[in-house]
Amino acid sequence: METILSSPSRQVIIGGDHPFVIIGERINPTGRKVLTEQMLAMKMDMVRSDALKQVAAGAHMLDINAGVPDDGVEPAILKAAIQAVQETVDVPLSIDSSVIAALEAGLSVYQGKALVNSVTGEDERLEVVLPLVKKYGAAVIAIANDETGISNDPQVRLQVAQKIMKHAEHYHIPPEDVLIDPLVLTVSADTQAAQNTLETIRLIKERLGVNMTCGASNVSFGLPWREHINTTFLAMAMAAGLPSAITNPLKPEIRRAVLAGDLLMGHDAFAGQFIAAYRAQQEQQVKAD
Amino acid sequence: METILSSPSRQVIIGGDHPFVIIGERINPTGRKVLTEQMLAMKMDMVRSDALKQVAAGAHMLDINAGVPDDGVEPAILKAAIQAVQETVDVPLSIDSSVIAALEAGLSVYQGKALVNSVTGEDERLEVVLPLVKKYGAAVIAIANDETGISNDPQVRLQVAQKIMKHAEHYHIPPEDVLIDPLVLTVSADTQAAQNTLETIRLIKERLGVNMTCGASNVSFGLPWREHINTTFLAMAMAAGLPSAITNPLKPEIRRAVLAGDLLMGHDAFAGQFIAAYRAQQEQQVKAD
Repeated sequence: METILSSPSRQVIIGGDHPFVIIGERINPTGRKVLTEQMLAMKMDMVRSDALKQVAAGAHMLDINAGVPDDGVEPAILKAAIQAVQETVDVPLSIDSSVIAALEAGLSVYQGKALVNSVTGEDERLEVVLPLVKKYGAAVIAIANDETGISNDPQVRLQVAQKIMKHAEHYHIPPEDVLIDPLVLTVSADTQAAQNTLETIRLIKERLGVNMTCGASNVSFGLPWREHINTTFLAMAMAAGLPSAITNPLKPEIRRAVLAGDLLMGHDAFAGQFIAAYRAQQEQQVKAD
Repeated sequence: METILSSPSRQVIIGGDHPFVIIGERINPTGRKVLTEQMLAMKMDMVRSDALKQVAAGAHMLDINAGVPDDGVEPAILKAAIQAVQETVDVPLSIDSSVIAALEAGLSVYQGKALVNSVTGEDERLEVVLPLVKKYGAAVIAIANDETGISNDPQVRLQVAQKIMKHAEHYHIPPEDVLIDPLVLTVSADTQAAQNTLETIRLIKERLGVNMTCGASNVSFGLPWREHINTTFLAMAMAAGLPSAITNPLKPEIRRAVLAGDLLMGHDAFAGQFIAAYRAQQEQQVKAD
């Protein structure tokens, strides 16, 4: 199954035997004081430079989140951020908000086929987000939790995913336009957290066959050596069937783990992509020296 | 299933829900000129220091290979190397040779329960190595290839493993004392090589339930950024069910990927082992600064 996202000039395919898709997570004001201030002042300089940096570092798509403390201004900021990013880079975008008015504002100006981030398995969210996704011909990230909260049981997460797929069908959204988020929780709070996610990925791949994405960096929250945990988790998740993740491409080790993962998954014939990235990095280093 | 190896004062358990076992690969003269010269002169200084370094870096066991160009002297060298290492460190050892006389010489002086590296599925090897393994109460690494060579088909590798298990049973070697090597070939020669190994690991775990080990660094032979390929492969192999590997613990990224892997597999409660290793590294760094 292939999920296609697009900008006016570029198409990204998630799934099938295509290389893993990195969705850059940096354009998000959470915990970023300067970015928050700029967004509130409707200045998009940092948004643009974050977009450029992430694409240069290998992001195939970018997530755009304008979740400033004031919900009332979020729609206008998200709209402006999306326009600024689409003027700056040509990768497809993920429009990230829990505020429906913000999602609609973002979708209304987005050029291409967007990814909506996100809906959950809660009835009231499904009923407002899915019609929006359909109206704008977008794809959507659907998180495998519902009214009852987040289950630790992979079978329950699968059931929530099945419920979401039924609702999507009802709104005539094709299965390839739903990316299930199997839910990544931190392993510091629960020793079985990563195993639960990996088992959910395997189940969803086997039983539903749909594509997936997740916020991969959550797994290491609260722990040292996060880069080692994050890259190891990404490798395990790729092997289990995860075809994309929302993560930080500015960490070179993340990008390289994904390149190595594509190679080991048999998705990089003759190591062409891997060796090209290595050479590009060597050339940059020579220039820098 | 648990495979137990021992030295006079220490026991290592492979499999079950135990942390991944790193078997240090450095004591091997292949491609190491100075070590070859010292071994031929029966000087064990470098062998001892390589043993100390690897154990300090986190190796749980050490592989001892004395494969100098002259087969005639290998038994005496392997014997001396094993004695030198057992005087220096207390981890269990893997006795590594294709020369039967060398394996027997090594086993005759080894104190504890050794790992014999290795036998293949070839009748003539099984018939000489397995009786030795039984005689000395050792465990053995059994490589999933036979007279017909190395198959790319995971099903054929499984069949060879099944044949080996039958022969082991015939010699009254219990299944927990056989570690199947699913065969790691370089992905630079065959894009599907890593997938074939991972599928073999999954099949052997599911169908035979026995433990495994492999030479994990082979996967990246001939490619740049080997450390990124090796750590990514180890993570994928751990998730597929590999409980140990023969690899280089002197590369900090390998050791950290394995620690992260144990954590993500749910084999490191409350991240105790992971955080202890992080703190030890921080203290070393403070001392070095």
